[in-house]
Amino acid sequence: MLRIAICAPGKPILRDRAAAVEALAAEEFPDVDLRFHPQCFAEAGHFAGDDATRLAAFLDCANDPAVDAVWFAMGGYGANRIAREAVARLGEAARGKTFLGYSDTGTLLGALYRSGMGRPVHGPLAGDVRRDGGADAVRRVLHYLSDGRTGLEPSIGGRPVAAFNLMTLAMLVGTEFMPDLAGHVVMVEEVAEHLYAVDRLMFHVTENLRGIAGLRMGRVSAVPDNDRPFGADEVAIARYWCERTGIPYLGRADIGHDAANKIVPFGLAGHAAAT
Amino acid sequence: MLRIAICAPGKPILRDRAAAVEALAAEEFPDVDLRFHPQCFAEAGHFAGDDATRLAAFLDCANDPAVDAVWFAMGGYGANRIAREAVARLGEAARGKTFLGYSDTGTLLGALYRSGMGRPVHGPLAGDVRRDGGADAVRRVLHYLSDGRTGLEPSIGGRPVAAFNLMTLAMLVGTEFMPDLAGHVVMVEEVAEHLYAVDRLMFHVTENLRGIAGLRMGRVSAVPDNDRPFGADEVAIARYWCERTGIPYLGRADIGHDAANKIVPFGLAGHAAAT
Repeated sequence: MLRIAICAPGKPILRDRAAAVEALAAEEFPDVDLRFHPQCFAEAGHFAGDDATRLAAFLDCANDPAVDAVWFAMGGYGANRIAREAVARLGEAARGKTFLGYSDTGTLLGALYRSGMGRPVHGPLAGDVRRDGGADAVRRVLHYLSDGRTGLEPSIGGRPVAAFNLMTLAMLVGTEFMPDLAGHVVMVEEVAEHLYAVDRLMFHVTENLRGIAGLRMGRVSAVPDNDRPFGADEVAIARYWCERTGIPYLGRADIGHDAANKIVPFGLAGHAAAT
Repeated sequence: MLRIAICAPGKPILRDRAAAVEALAAEEFPDVDLRFHPQCFAEAGHFAGDDATRLAAFLDCANDPAVDAVWFAMGGYGANRIAREAVARLGEAARGKTFLGYSDTGTLLGALYRSGMGRPVHGPLAGDVRRDGGADAVRRVLHYLSDGRTGLEPSIGGRPVAAFNLMTLAMLVGTEFMPDLAGHVVMVEEVAEHLYAVDRLMFHVTENLRGIAGLRMGRVSAVPDNDRPFGADEVAIARYWCERTGIPYLGRADIGHDAANKIVPFGLAGHAAAT
């Protein structure tokens, strides 16, 4: 039996989405015991409960020795407000545990990776069940958590990797939660940002990531209309800033704010499985 | 005769706005010779001309010995793409010159301050003439450039200061253009960002500005409606992140994306005038 605990470090998940994930797991994954922490449905202003509530739920899941993996319900915003205490108060039970999510929860993945606690993995959120094809995103996560090797981002090879939402990474660099990504292939993706903002974020991120092995650009989706075209797409933007900062641009990554978002275990964790 | 050269490092200015600034200067400031560089009206995708065009115009203005001050026409986005060459190719004529603007052009102010070239000043753009009360913003700049002491942000006192748009500063930290702001009072302002994004930016900026003398929060205007209230205003947000990072929060700053935006000369440049 694989026991998965779900919490929401940023915004809450709607009950019908949680029910859809539970139904799919019960139907297709009889060896998975999947539990949404009640905090997933809490509301406090922007957040799924106040900072103390979200922190306590994360620690409930992370420090429970009966739990094999912690899965994040939703992104939104708010993981950075609890990341310091979240990592500082992890116990032995968290050491070998998988933590899986993306978007805003990438802040926690980064902080965990920096601390050496747990196994951070970039992949679909439980709430992604709502997307077109979202059931497949949920299946991908449950298969990966079951066998540790399916659904991996296809470029994963012999070098350590990490993946982030571009805005989340841009806000992470230089902070107390930023892991050392020297020698890593870093994958980024973005949603609902103007291309000029993507350009600005890529300036900031490449300037702060000198020394990485290379960068891969995931999907940039739901770009809002602007009063004028930017004049370059996300690949041209990535190439431009990588060239200026001496970072090898390695091509596309199969990640994004969509149901096709593939699994990226941080470091070398996915490599034995991929080879 | 005070000669002011105007260029546009980011987006172009509309001709009627430039005409309004010229008319005001001709009517009220007979000792000011104000010239819009033709590049101010160029268009290339998002930008006021491509990178080479914007860079050349900046250098035309900055390196002209007959020019006393360089004023930026508009913000938008794009100063970061020319800042490296813009600073590297400054000549002796630029050394004592004032460079005045804000918003996206804060990247150039920061890069100039880091390099020790010129006198960077945070204040209204020429294009602010379009705002309610915009004529007063233009008058404030022309008075300040004429006498070097009127229109200053009122909290300026005995310590070095700097001011930035919050997003611009967030993208500047950790880059090759970031000046050393240790010991400075740093003022920030923002426009058209959700409060959760302001919170996220303040996390990033305070984490990257440990060692400054203090932070002042300017106006945060035109906040878009969100699907739920954030639950804290910009002052509570500033206090929260300042406390977490040990930065003294010093109160409000009289700066913002509006016509009341006061003048902030970087460093100690405004202090002799203010005392």
